[in-house]
Amino acid sequence: MREIRKDPIHNRWVIIASNRKNRPHAFYREEEEVGSKKECPFCEGKEKKTPPEIDSFRASGKPNEPGWEIRVVPNKFPALTSDGEPRKVYNGLYYKINGFGIHEVIIETPYHKKNLFNMDKKEISLIISMYKKRYLALKENKNLKYILIFKNHGKIAGGSLPHSHSQIIGLPLIPPEIEEEIILVEDSVKCHYCKLIQRAYNENRVLKRNKDFIVLAPYASVAPYELVIYPLQHKPCFEEIKDSEITSLSELLQDVFKKYNKVLGNPPFNYFLHTAPTALTPRVYKNYHWHIVIMPKLTMTAGFEKSSNIYINPVEPKEAVGKLREAGEEL
Amino acid sequence: MREIRKDPIHNRWVIIASNRKNRPHAFYREEEEVGSKKECPFCEGKEKKTPPEIDSFRASGKPNEPGWEIRVVPNKFPALTSDGEPRKVYNGLYYKINGFGIHEVIIETPYHKKNLFNMDKKEISLIISMYKKRYLALKENKNLKYILIFKNHGKIAGGSLPHSHSQIIGLPLIPPEIEEEIILVEDSVKCHYCKLIQRAYNENRVLKRNKDFIVLAPYASVAPYELVIYPLQHKPCFEEIKDSEITSLSELLQDVFKKYNKVLGNPPFNYFLHTAPTALTPRVYKNYHWHIVIMPKLTMTAGFEKSSNIYINPVEPKEAVGKLREAGEEL
Repeated sequence: MREIRKDPIHNRWVIIASNRKNRPHAFYREEEEVGSKKECPFCEGKEKKTPPEIDSFRASGKPNEPGWEIRVVPNKFPALTSDGEPRKVYNGLYYKINGFGIHEVIIETPYHKKNLFNMDKKEISLIISMYKKRYLALKENKNLKYILIFKNHGKIAGGSLPHSHSQIIGLPLIPPEIEEEIILVEDSVKCHYCKLIQRAYNENRVLKRNKDFIVLAPYASVAPYELVIYPLQHKPCFEEIKDSEITSLSELLQDVFKKYNKVLGNPPFNYFLHTAPTALTPRVYKNYHWHIVIMPKLTMTAGFEKSSNIYINPVEPKEAVGKLREAGEEL
Repeated sequence: MREIRKDPIHNRWVIIASNRKNRPHAFYREEEEVGSKKECPFCEGKEKKTPPEIDSFRASGKPNEPGWEIRVVPNKFPALTSDGEPRKVYNGLYYKINGFGIHEVIIETPYHKKNLFNMDKKEISLIISMYKKRYLALKENKNLKYILIFKNHGKIAGGSLPHSHSQIIGLPLIPPEIEEEIILVEDSVKCHYCKLIQRAYNENRVLKRNKDFIVLAPYASVAPYELVIYPLQHKPCFEEIKDSEITSLSELLQDVFKKYNKVLGNPPFNYFLHTAPTALTPRVYKNYHWHIVIMPKLTMTAGFEKSSNIYINPVEPKEAVGKLREAGEEL
């Protein structure tokens, strides 16, 4: 049973996906053991343990055989599936869409122990290239209104398997978070994000920049040590990223994760990519500015946050940048 | 350093509370050991280990001595403090309030092993009575615009100490979650929540009712096995609850937690109380309907939820009610 339901009170949706309750890690239990290499379905040589691959970058071999560098497979327990067409149903107080969508997993490396903390620039750039490739492929599906790329690393950050991977969810709606961002920029004269970048400079919250990208700690960071990466030039759409920019972005990401490792010791984290919705026209999103938000998972959000949409962050963003900068000098 | 910062993009606030990073459990670590009874500061006889008590229900003894049934103390690492007055600062893109507020802890029992899963009706009703008492006391502080009562049980649900306790945070602003609810009801002719209750009956999502309260699974439950308790009669303000209603509510709560225990095995959980803001007039909130939301903590929200404000719930709400109902028959 799968449905995407609009909360009747809040600007929030829920995907009801009963099938997911049968997956091995559906319910978090503190005593759960993280899967060992032996049983890992994402390692090279275990290709038959995943659903057949959708895409890959490979130096050798045929699909579903060893020889790959990046591998994309359908999520074994998808939150959404692409059977049929999305249908919206309004029913008095309630509004819903059937569970239409795409849920893919990007296996970022054939090696069990590799992750963003120890990958080289080339390995990271392959991940970004695959994000772009899959984004462009899914963009062809006109039933998808938004394509969300994100990553959960570490059990406490929702990473149910330890082997490094990202996820892509294609949605038949524009998520509320993005909707809020688009509403804000739609009628503005100048890009709101460009202004935020300028303010981060003025307020010493910029961690680093290179020729194409900047990474900063947002003024109202929700998570301790939260960072956001923006292209320096105003650009609404991630998928227009050029190869040279993929290289710059990978450099910056590698540096960020080295700093995180140094200061926070391989912390669990989430990151996600926010870009202009595929469902909208450039007229609407021209002032949008794509970005990647990285949130180390160091605190638990609980009753207070859920009941208020107010977060408690124990680390001042400027101070977080200071600590990460110091670490950089020692790298 | 303490500030409450408005996110420049989203309708979301962050309390920057640097002092909290020094508390023992500020950063979640999976290997952390839950405090044993020996070192628990909330047990009877350990009164000196907490800041001096603000309030209590006690059969005997003086403040900060044994003999209490419920004890209220300031949070040792408060997210907010009541020094001075709240001041709003608008600064171009940014909006903030200084970290004004109240943060109290309600120690619900002198016994280390007691909790909502094994307390009797009388013990639970004392907790509710203390919620009311503290709410009324804090309502006198005209600098507080909202008083939030919530509970985190279990480490994974943000409960940093295992000894059963609730928290109260008094805020100098109306939280976005409540703001959304108030905006919805302000201009409505009839209470929106009363309609939701009716729909829950029609759709077989009611778990139970007694003479004063009803407990149901919401249509778009964010968490698996989420339940909401409403007073049957339309009532905006929790603090007007009568003693006989406290008894009814305690009966219902006891039953709900017995069912949770039976079906989910003493699950970690959060609950919170949503009531009309103290800062508003009855004209504005007359159509508000107070309620308690209970969310077992069984899944991890991660990159997807953070980036979208869309949640994935693996259990259909009606099915959750069915399972809990079956359990009830065996109790």
